[in-house]
Amino acid sequence: MGSESRKTFLPLDPMSFSNESKAVIDFIADYYENVEKYPVRSTVEPGYLSARLPESAPYCPEPLDDILKDVHDCIIPGLTHWQSPNFFAYFQANASTAGFLGEMLCSGFNVVGFNWVSSPAATELESIVLDWMGKLLQLPSSFLFAGTGGGVLHGSTCEAAVCVLAAARDKALKELGGWENITKLVVYASDQTHFTFQKAAKLVGIPPSNFRFIETSFSTGFSMSPEKVRIAVEDDVKSGLVPLFLCATVGTTPTGAVDPIAGLGKLAVEFKLWLHIDAAYAGSACICPELRHYLDGVELANSISMNPHKWFLTNMDCCCLWIKEPKLLTDSLSTDPEILKNTATKSEAVVDYKDWQIALSRRFRALKLWIVIRRHGLANLMHHIRSDIAMAKRFEEFVRKDRGSRSWCQESSHWFASVVGGIYVIRCAIGATLTQQHHVDALWKLVQEKAHTLLKEREH
Amino acid sequence: MGSESRKTFLPLDPMSFSNESKAVIDFIADYYENVEKYPVRSTVEPGYLSARLPESAPYCPEPLDDILKDVHDCIIPGLTHWQSPNFFAYFQANASTAGFLGEMLCSGFNVVGFNWVSSPAATELESIVLDWMGKLLQLPSSFLFAGTGGGVLHGSTCEAAVCVLAAARDKALKELGGWENITKLVVYASDQTHFTFQKAAKLVGIPPSNFRFIETSFSTGFSMSPEKVRIAVEDDVKSGLVPLFLCATVGTTPTGAVDPIAGLGKLAVEFKLWLHIDAAYAGSACICPELRHYLDGVELANSISMNPHKWFLTNMDCCCLWIKEPKLLTDSLSTDPEILKNTATKSEAVVDYKDWQIALSRRFRALKLWIVIRRHGLANLMHHIRSDIAMAKRFEEFVRKDRGSRSWCQESSHWFASVVGGIYVIRCAIGATLTQQHHVDALWKLVQEKAHTLLKEREH
Repeated sequence: MGSESRKTFLPLDPMSFSNESKAVIDFIADYYENVEKYPVRSTVEPGYLSARLPESAPYCPEPLDDILKDVHDCIIPGLTHWQSPNFFAYFQANASTAGFLGEMLCSGFNVVGFNWVSSPAATELESIVLDWMGKLLQLPSSFLFAGTGGGVLHGSTCEAAVCVLAAARDKALKELGGWENITKLVVYASDQTHFTFQKAAKLVGIPPSNFRFIETSFSTGFSMSPEKVRIAVEDDVKSGLVPLFLCATVGTTPTGAVDPIAGLGKLAVEFKLWLHIDAAYAGSACICPELRHYLDGVELANSISMNPHKWFLTNMDCCCLWIKEPKLLTDSLSTDPEILKNTATKSEAVVDYKDWQIALSRRFRALKLWIVIRRHGLANLMHHIRSDIAMAKRFEEFVRKDRGSRSWCQESSHWFASVVGGIYVIRCAIGATLTQQHHVDALWKLVQEKAHTLLKEREH
Repeated sequence: MGSESRKTFLPLDPMSFSNESKAVIDFIADYYENVEKYPVRSTVEPGYLSARLPESAPYCPEPLDDILKDVHDCIIPGLTHWQSPNFFAYFQANASTAGFLGEMLCSGFNVVGFNWVSSPAATELESIVLDWMGKLLQLPSSFLFAGTGGGVLHGSTCEAAVCVLAAARDKALKELGGWENITKLVVYASDQTHFTFQKAAKLVGIPPSNFRFIETSFSTGFSMSPEKVRIAVEDDVKSGLVPLFLCATVGTTPTGAVDPIAGLGKLAVEFKLWLHIDAAYAGSACICPELRHYLDGVELANSISMNPHKWFLTNMDCCCLWIKEPKLLTDSLSTDPEILKNTATKSEAVVDYKDWQIALSRRFRALKLWIVIRRHGLANLMHHIRSDIAMAKRFEEFVRKDRGSRSWCQESSHWFASVVGGIYVIRCAIGATLTQQHHVDALWKLVQEKAHTLLKEREH
């Protein structure tokens, strides 16, 4: 009664916070109960939502029930259900209870830990959890705070790419003695590398014509050949250009290809290229000792990133970036305005993460990754990876035993078609949090049915 | 029993999701109940946390209770409590129940709406809510989807700045006919403009020496003089440089100064400068008709951004960016990889937000802003702004009536010192969600006591 009789506007009253939040928890739990029943891919047409919602904001407050009804009736039908066990498109975006709890605490505390003093726990937990994660991946100590490097949480690989490219760029421009040399800098990647690196290179001002796509092929599993990189680098040097940056991928988006890190690393050292390893997708798997070899040679890299928000049961968004020489990052990205001066920063005893990323503001994402790791433990995290791989192998076996079902291709409710090395392929990314073996079996049945129908149509 | 007897690892089981989430809700509600009791600024020393937590991740899963105990015992003491009603530092980061609910739904659905087809509702709700918000600010239709422009949600002003700077850069480089002209581009801001624009300009490859800080002074309320900008622009043109971009601020970080938008807008039109308005902080206030005049002249700008995650009861992170010619943004930022090709995109009937931002991945932030607006309604949102302003005016009155308490200055638990125009000031940002009048009165009492003590010390 006390709180109800108050006339004041109380947008963060603990009692209503608790009641309304629990109603939303029930709503989401119900969504998970039913997610399998929805068509994975929304069937709405462009513009569907503007026909259902008002054109302008309401003047008066609306009850939560009305809002949740609209979420149910208007939003859910327009979702592509990434958490459906039948979602096999793009890549997995693993939600988990632990990840959700971390997001709740992050949003609840709502601290803005741009530097140490603005919330010491946010900074320190992030450094600790980056070391935890780095150790799970058996990264050399040159990438850890416990050694001579360090790590940071970004929102996305592209953000990480922009930051390491800027660091590499600024180091090179300093050595070359002038900003006009920016037009000479060259970035190397394969034709399978995530397009985000091309975008990032252009964003930091490297001419798009200086981005080299090294050709890959089916015969080498779409992995990047160090010899082909060498030819491109030597060509550019001959032309008076300055090879700057090489991106190697562990688990490419189109096919999950793995570039040979050790071979590319030796080349990078020889030509003083900044080697970044993009392990966004498959990096998570390297916590399993039997899969760790994909990272062999990582000690030759300058930086490496991976996304727990893909295959590591961590809700969006969470990208780990480790760097061998954090000073190069902070030399490029640091700012020192009057308003943020403080004794902790002056003492140089602390990390100020604003100087490790694009933005000033940042969320307390470390809580999320910390809780994911603790709540599951390495044991269950490895179990998670291994059971997904077992399901993928089972599916691979289905395909291998079959013949000729390669001639149909449409974007569908479950998977996405793509062209890789001139070959039209159906991608199938197994590993959504809720996917179980019977979902994979059902997928194969669907594939067979669709292929059968198409082949029949052809005959007529 | 059914779910408990299963031996399978179930990281997203609806039952345990519900139980564990509700335990965390209780934890956060308890935090809000007690937040006033904590010292606003953490008293921990650098490195405090590594002494309390293990060096490596656990092998076995840990119970939620143990984790929450550590959050309570180890994390909370290391927080600077941005949600404390006694928080007056930096700027407000308004959490609210509505904002939290939106974050929960965003994290619960965990969809990745990088293009329309990957989750139509995420894209369409974002476009709708950007139009809602734009209308609340009475932006001209040239910034709305309902008109000829459009908007997008970013995580931060810096991200928005990087994107509009890249768009302006690429438009200019196209007109100038070659990437080597990047070294000629010049960006203008005042010495009060948020340092994020300087960082963003460097990030997109504009030489740091081409960033002009227009001097401001106490006498003109630290606002940027169009005449001074004109002098700088004309100087640069004479030197063969190319004036590119002008940033005007509505509510600067150091003092809340407002630049004269109309005057700067006319200048921008005359010299074909891209005018961006950074209304991150004070933009929220412009939903009140009596304060809307601060945006007069906005029709002359090319883009405008404001952060609901500051003063608009929206939990981190949420930055609105509106742009008059979205095509310039997408020309600069779009990518078209095989894996994302789809019929909706080909039809050009949809927005693909990946081409409006840095990253590919994106969270469904629109849910949050939509719920904040609906749950509060314009009526209560205006009430929120007006009551904060009333409290700030009350504090201003206290200061005005007092004399001579200007000679002490230390970073403290509640506010931050800064130097503005050579004057040492104590900043006090009133507007945390939970702040009430008696907190502001208590702050003034504390200021007086501290000043008194310092003056006494001086006498001795």
